[in-house]
Amino acid sequence: MTIQQKLEQIEAALAQALVQYRDPAELYDPVHYVLSAGGKRIRPLLVLLATEAVGGETTDAMNAALAIEMLHNFTLVHDDIMDRSSLRRGRATAHIQFDENSAILSGDVIVGIASKLLSASAQHSHNPSAVFDVFSQGFIDVCEGQALDVAFTKRTDVHPDEYFGMIERKTARLLETSVHIGALVGNGDPQHTSALRTFARDIGLAFQMQDDILDVEGSHGFGKTPGGDLIEGKRTWLMLRAREKATGKPEFQELVQTFFSQNGIAPTQVEQMRTHLIQEGVLAEGTAMVEKLTEEAFVHLHKLPDSTARQHLEELATTLMERTT
Amino acid sequence: MTIQQKLEQIEAALAQALVQYRDPAELYDPVHYVLSAGGKRIRPLLVLLATEAVGGETTDAMNAALAIEMLHNFTLVHDDIMDRSSLRRGRATAHIQFDENSAILSGDVIVGIASKLLSASAQHSHNPSAVFDVFSQGFIDVCEGQALDVAFTKRTDVHPDEYFGMIERKTARLLETSVHIGALVGNGDPQHTSALRTFARDIGLAFQMQDDILDVEGSHGFGKTPGGDLIEGKRTWLMLRAREKATGKPEFQELVQTFFSQNGIAPTQVEQMRTHLIQEGVLAEGTAMVEKLTEEAFVHLHKLPDSTARQHLEELATTLMERTT
Repeated sequence: MTIQQKLEQIEAALAQALVQYRDPAELYDPVHYVLSAGGKRIRPLLVLLATEAVGGETTDAMNAALAIEMLHNFTLVHDDIMDRSSLRRGRATAHIQFDENSAILSGDVIVGIASKLLSASAQHSHNPSAVFDVFSQGFIDVCEGQALDVAFTKRTDVHPDEYFGMIERKTARLLETSVHIGALVGNGDPQHTSALRTFARDIGLAFQMQDDILDVEGSHGFGKTPGGDLIEGKRTWLMLRAREKATGKPEFQELVQTFFSQNGIAPTQVEQMRTHLIQEGVLAEGTAMVEKLTEEAFVHLHKLPDSTARQHLEELATTLMERTT
Repeated sequence: MTIQQKLEQIEAALAQALVQYRDPAELYDPVHYVLSAGGKRIRPLLVLLATEAVGGETTDAMNAALAIEMLHNFTLVHDDIMDRSSLRRGRATAHIQFDENSAILSGDVIVGIASKLLSASAQHSHNPSAVFDVFSQGFIDVCEGQALDVAFTKRTDVHPDEYFGMIERKTARLLETSVHIGALVGNGDPQHTSALRTFARDIGLAFQMQDDILDVEGSHGFGKTPGGDLIEGKRTWLMLRAREKATGKPEFQELVQTFFSQNGIAPTQVEQMRTHLIQEGVLAEGTAMVEKLTEEAFVHLHKLPDSTARQHLEELATTLMERTT
């Protein structure tokens, strides 16, 4: 089965899983709105491919795959409320399209549905409690990551290394959780499970760093503002590193100072910041890090025996890293 | 072990379970604030007593008991945001004490912690997936109940019977879920499990109806406003029934009309409404319903063999029904 076919299966299964959740409409209309908005469906794909890569049946893992995608979407709905974001995937965010109360409660019920779907897949594992333990820990870590992300915007002393602790939880953990659960449902051996986890974690870190770089480079995904992170004052690794490297360079330092003290720069200053980040080699350092993480990820992936699923995992990771938007 | 001793064990276990959740403080301070505020701890007690009543070990069920208490507290935190409540258990609600973003995210992570604790207890059940299935369904139902409750305040055509569908999900389901999970962890036989569930459901319905009656009677719990439901325009069964019975009684009808069209009456009108509800027998009907539900609950409870746990369940239910605040 090709990746494309798996993605089609995921969409069909997702639609099917939601059929029974229609009433009350006040609760479930936002759920359908959010979950039908598309997205790359990377996480459910990782679940299915991990199950297959360790020799399990992907049909056993489909409900777990949907559970992870729902957990991901739940975090987006609540994060968008907290970040006051009005746009997601080119559409109004849930709290804008409906209202804030609906977005809170509908986000909540998505977790309930996710948890229920997971219990259907967990029974295929030799250790169903472990499936829930991993899911719950991933859930907790993602909340911690979001809390750190918010806390960073209020701090002026964040060290570049702390950034990785934050995105490891906020972004990478859910990718790691995806393959971990896939491997548990497929009853993979501990070495393969562990290798898959490190692979997904490294790809997750690289993915987020790549995202931050693309934002500065001016490429922008569907529904994103170019340079948006710089305007919003987002404490990315690039900006934390920029602060270190700006010492002794007055113009750069002043701009970086503005970024941190005023929580972002003006749209008219984006080009200037970009030039400095390129000239001072900050972007190059970031790019080198993405390459190193990606390489390491593949070393871990190759600890698994060759298979179509392993090739698809490699293909998926490569696509993610080569994207320009 | 007495009920009091079990309650002390629950408090100690809860404190212990939270020790590891301290950092980041932005995320976990509100969690500790909410979970250390007390409350009657009825739900975790129900879990432990149900496990014991079907012949299981309460130590196996403690983590599940905490999970249920956390799920309950999570719903309170998010409901308080949605209802714009500023007071809970005599203290500022989480979104007032901290801020709304903190309350949303800390509420979320409480679910993650609950789910993690549940996975520790679930392994004692012969069917761990069922434990999660029941927990998740309870979670979904509580969200549906809250959505219906919110939706009712915007509708003028709610029938008294619909009220039971709402409180069955919003209030009774979590009590039912508590004993259901306790029975699953204790590996109770299906008949006893089913009897415990009906017992808890009936007690839950009676409990909510009793709560509504106490509000009108002017008794009021710690941190509640007497007549608060009438002032807030809460669509209780009493008021839905009042609308039916007010036909042809101009003064009563006008007051009821005001309640529904203006979403509540003035504090100065509470006494007048109370008098009508008593004179027209609405309160008496409610009280009769509480008694009937309580009686039925005990019939189901008595399907279980006599034991200390069964006696404690009876004692707990009686205390809940005899309370005057």
